[in-house]
Amino acid sequence: MPYVSREGDVFVLNLGAEGEQAGENRFHPDWMDAIHASLDEIEGSEGPAALVVTSTGKFFSNGLDVEWIFGHLDQLPEYLDRTHSIFSRLLTFPMPTISAISGHAFGAGAMLAISTDLQLMREDQGFFCLPEVDLNMPFTVGMSALLNSRLPKQTAIEAMTTGRRFGGPDALAAGIVQATSDATALLSSAVSRAEQLTSKRGANLGGIKRSIHGDLIGALETKTRDTDFAFGQQ
Amino acid sequence: MPYVSREGDVFVLNLGAEGEQAGENRFHPDWMDAIHASLDEIEGSEGPAALVVTSTGKFFSNGLDVEWIFGHLDQLPEYLDRTHSIFSRLLTFPMPTISAISGHAFGAGAMLAISTDLQLMREDQGFFCLPEVDLNMPFTVGMSALLNSRLPKQTAIEAMTTGRRFGGPDALAAGIVQATSDATALLSSAVSRAEQLTSKRGANLGGIKRSIHGDLIGALETKTRDTDFAFGQQ
Amino acid sequence: MPYVSREGDVFVLNLGAEGEQAGENRFHPDWMDAIHASLDEIEGSEGPAALVVTSTGKFFSNGLDVEWIFGHLDQLPEYLDRTHSIFSRLLTFPMPTISAISGHAFGAGAMLAISTDLQLMREDQGFFCLPEVDLNMPFTVGMSALLNSRLPKQTAIEAMTTGRRFGGPDALAAGIVQATSDATALLSSAVSRAEQLTSKRGANLGGIKRSIHGDLIGALETKTRDTDFAFGQQ
Repeated sequence: MPYVSREGDVFVLNLGAEGEQAGENRFHPDWMDAIHASLDEIEGSEGPAALVVTSTGKFFSNGLDVEWIFGHLDQLPEYLDRTHSIFSRLLTFPMPTISAISGHAFGAGAMLAISTDLQLMREDQGFFCLPEVDLNMPFTVGMSALLNSRLPKQTAIEAMTTGRRFGGPDALAAGIVQATSDATALLSSAVSRAEQLTSKRGANLGGIKRSIHGDLIGALETKTRDTDFAFGQQ
Repeated sequence: MPYVSREGDVFVLNLGAEGEQAGENRFHPDWMDAIHASLDEIEGSEGPAALVVTSTGKFFSNGLDVEWIFGHLDQLPEYLDRTHSIFSRLLTFPMPTISAISGHAFGAGAMLAISTDLQLMREDQGFFCLPEVDLNMPFTVGMSALLNSRLPKQTAIEAMTTGRRFGGPDALAAGIVQATSDATALLSSAVSRAEQLTSKRGANLGGIKRSIHGDLIGALETKTRDTDFAFGQQ
Repeated sequence: MPYVSREGDVFVLNLGAEGEQAGENRFHPDWMDAIHASLDEIEGSEGPAALVVTSTGKFFSNGLDVEWIFGHLDQLPEYLDRTHSIFSRLLTFPMPTISAISGHAFGAGAMLAISTDLQLMREDQGFFCLPEVDLNMPFTVGMSALLNSRLPKQTAIEAMTTGRRFGGPDALAAGIVQATSDATALLSSAVSRAEQLTSKRGANLGGIKRSIHGDLIGALETKTRDTDFAFGQQ
């Protein structure tokens, strides 16, 4: 389960379980509940603050929990709405937010990574990838809006239509992330940047983010209907 | 008239007549019918596939057929709607699409070139240019939406308000095309990239493209009215 | 007060008073009236023309006139609507427009700078900065739309959420400006570029700009309500 640690005024939300190196950090309903609970805890703090989202091990997040989905196909629309709620909450979180993309960020995991204000990525390992085109999966309205709003248009088209795996340097060149660093420096670099921004925390920053992402939040809050998302079909 | 050839699983749509080097490949109604018929043929194929759009000779496409328009001014709205249908169809074509911009791409020809997923351009000859501002012509709602959606904003502003002629290297720097190559390598480079993507072909890819370009398709499908587009007037 | 001079067919709108080096060129109601009167004068000219917007001294424009606002809080919505009218008018001005950002461009001054077609900036002095996040100020709907439309998305997010001060080279790298030059060459460089574009002047160019910025103009023309903009509050 995700957990929160703290370095000074910087909260670090780890997407995986403590001590776990092989977890895929997929969007299981319990995992999403834990993410929201962690964000509740962080948001409940007082004073200057910033948030770094990262993970330990091979995966940042491997996306939707396909195994859970196939066992609960009747709950798919609500599941996708819940997935969207993670993106919306990060996009408008009332403190500075940085993703430290430490491993593979696939599908919804890639979308989570670009729901923060700034993206740093490990330069030597891990891919940013949208495999939906190869899995015969569509994007929801909200997911497509997120990708097309947060990525340069040509990058969104390439990522969504080809499933290209972007390593750190390629992700930097494509405008997906704003900096890369080696594995040992990634988290400290993210925390260091976050420290410089903790004074911005507050309701006004949340309002500014809502003004930036207003249309996108509207798309993410659109309830998913059965007919919008036929999983595994054409 | 445009014609289709095939290299393995890659269809090559040539915008000009076979053996013709001087054709301007303008949007004559018969030419548009032939483009749609070619796309019908390609779409009617089965199995892995991708599409390269190119031409031979001096022009990729020199845009609207001004001579035809002045002889049929009463049919201008329907003519423009038909022009838009070429862009819409390419934008949502259910297989990977690449433009190999082999010569001048002007006006609607430039718009056609950016209606595919990826753009390659000859580096030593040919311009991408929107001459409308110098011809005292407006852009339709759909054309403006296409240019502002597919080009980086500042590039759209410069291209649309100044009529700047972008050669290959300038088009690359401005984010209009994603790669350039010399004349002899252009088509083979496009076909080679397309070959790697043929497995993506299918209805799901078409749906992904519609989700990417949803608002743009809506603008292109808006019927043109007389009052929207006064050709040759201010 | 702002004043207009002329170099051949290029009008130069100086945002500050003649001979004044220390003026902040803030958006006082009288200053905004003078800007509109200057633009009326320029628009009333005949023949080829282009516009360069610049200033002399330390500030390009330091933004909203906070002192005036606190003395007239009951008039804030109308004041903001008037501010928006400067941006809208420049965005759709029927001749080529270039900002020569000669000094600090802060808040509404930064927004004015990106309401022209092209942005040049002094390389050695002056910052482009949105200090709102540090001043506990929101952005109006129109201001947020302007920043998110005219800047690359990631640049808009960074500028709006962190208040980063972009010097010339940083502004160039972030896609805020398209070129930089030293202090002595800035104005002549802007005038020289403008001279090459004077033939584009006319109603058709104004229409092209309205088609580019249609949604943005709609946002800027939305009347500000008291509840949209609580100055100095969270």
